[in-house]
Amino acid sequence: MINSPICEMLGIQYPLFQGGMAWIADGRLAAAVSEAGGLGIIAAGNSRADYVREQIHIARSLTDKPFGVNIMLMSRYADDVAAIAAEERVAAVTTGAGNPAGYMAMWREAGVKVIPVVASVAMAKLMTRAGASALIAEGGESGGHVGELTTMVLVPLVCDATDLPVIAAGGIADGRGVAAALMLGACGVQVGTRFLSAEECTIHPTYKERILKATDRGTTVVGKRLDHPIRCLRNGFTRAYSKAEYGGAPDEELEKMSVGAFRGAVEEGNWTKNCFMSGQSAAMVHEIQPAAVIVRELMEGAEPYLKGAAAWVK
Amino acid sequence: MINSPICEMLGIQYPLFQGGMAWIADGRLAAAVSEAGGLGIIAAGNSRADYVREQIHIARSLTDKPFGVNIMLMSRYADDVAAIAAEERVAAVTTGAGNPAGYMAMWREAGVKVIPVVASVAMAKLMTRAGASALIAEGGESGGHVGELTTMVLVPLVCDATDLPVIAAGGIADGRGVAAALMLGACGVQVGTRFLSAEECTIHPTYKERILKATDRGTTVVGKRLDHPIRCLRNGFTRAYSKAEYGGAPDEELEKMSVGAFRGAVEEGNWTKNCFMSGQSAAMVHEIQPAAVIVRELMEGAEPYLKGAAAWVK
Repeated sequence: MINSPICEMLGIQYPLFQGGMAWIADGRLAAAVSEAGGLGIIAAGNSRADYVREQIHIARSLTDKPFGVNIMLMSRYADDVAAIAAEERVAAVTTGAGNPAGYMAMWREAGVKVIPVVASVAMAKLMTRAGASALIAEGGESGGHVGELTTMVLVPLVCDATDLPVIAAGGIADGRGVAAALMLGACGVQVGTRFLSAEECTIHPTYKERILKATDRGTTVVGKRLDHPIRCLRNGFTRAYSKAEYGGAPDEELEKMSVGAFRGAVEEGNWTKNCFMSGQSAAMVHEIQPAAVIVRELMEGAEPYLKGAAAWVK
Repeated sequence: MINSPICEMLGIQYPLFQGGMAWIADGRLAAAVSEAGGLGIIAAGNSRADYVREQIHIARSLTDKPFGVNIMLMSRYADDVAAIAAEERVAAVTTGAGNPAGYMAMWREAGVKVIPVVASVAMAKLMTRAGASALIAEGGESGGHVGELTTMVLVPLVCDATDLPVIAAGGIADGRGVAAALMLGACGVQVGTRFLSAEECTIHPTYKERILKATDRGTTVVGKRLDHPIRCLRNGFTRAYSKAEYGGAPDEELEKMSVGAFRGAVEEGNWTKNCFMSGQSAAMVHEIQPAAVIVRELMEGAEPYLKGAAAWVK
């Protein structure tokens, strides 16, 4: 069984976080991952605080094990959600799209570990100084909002820039990715896309189906021109958006195109019109499975690679 | 010492290829890498065949060890260069930017191993059927012409799609990257950017200096609109090009902007005007060193990670 310092810090069995995917990662999915020994994470996204509290209660009703909340700091409800995470004393808060320094003292007082998602060395250093407990270094092959550096480059750079435990994210969907992440200097992994195929994941059936069908050319990045690059499945939406993006469409038109497109993918599953966030690793996702099986396959799948690694050295 | 099936196939000591960087990887650099135990590779790029023959002879005068030639299949001299690689019976040919199937029989007859660079599963399958000896799976974090998939995702997908030995490329600049590549299923690595800082690399001093100075935000990709994405150092050239690319400039204008920009970087080192190809891993390159030291640091640097890997499993 793979063990790491992050397990002790959070009271979890496996050094595996489930990514805090907006509109997707609810209390039910988080509970299933935590119950299986990983760290389930409820995504607050742009939701109101009462939704987040409800999901925390749902997760608590399904598992006694620790879980976390992901807070999207650009959300207008970020202040309220941050307060609820402290009140509810969740095990950990992961943060994205901003600087959580203003909430750190409150969370620390409540015993909540703070684990920001970082995509650059500068952010890794800033979050280390601000008092984070660990960092998630997320490469641009991941789904949703992405940075430019890939996991292969970002993880060693972040490890060199901090003394905190580093969790690798981006492009990890099986045991090989887990083993590689540990070699890069990480002490755990965060996996998003692979959990889209979890039985407990409540996204629209079309979304799941399209993830299973995705090939290696299945994702693309849109939104670079507005400095909000998002990786998602290549479809009618991304074609129309890219055309507008490169065709000189005004910024407002681009912004309008994406309103409701993410939530729509999860709730309505309109393949031609919605934006289905996904990492490149969708190409490695082949079946719908219980979250517990996914957790086990990821962690046990890494073991033969790790045990056999010394044999490369003669 | 790290050993792998690719060493036996090519008669080399370390499973480490030096990337075939156009305008950069000449006979001197290739000889230095081969002499150090890796596989040095002369880049044919867009050069005439007599240049390539000359570089092969220079390499032969500097080392008795095997080396290769990289053939850019879009070059108008590709036919001639392909013939010279066979005539000169180099150890291996690596190929990029096209399908080398038409030359395979000639090379095989001459005892030249054929190792195409692939950036997708479809190309990996095609090259396997065409009779390649091995494949280089190159992720989009690498320098120069890039695909979309990153090393973390591409390498396991290619390994699943072929029975050939797979060499991982893209984002590998130290021992951690080497160890990670082996966990992903590769049996060796190709490294380009790190060798830009080799003493034996004859690029303009400004180019080397800018590689050493590059931070994690140091590279960007231009040329996506024309379907020839190129990763290079972020500078005046990339800013001007990106502006034209997104600003609706005609295709011909974009093409004109890049004429001479790559060769200029190598020969004249004009930082404001030229295009300096580089992988994201430039951020991990910190000093000018002999190629032999780079080879040793890459390979010996991986050993503690590989030897210690089993300790993750408790």
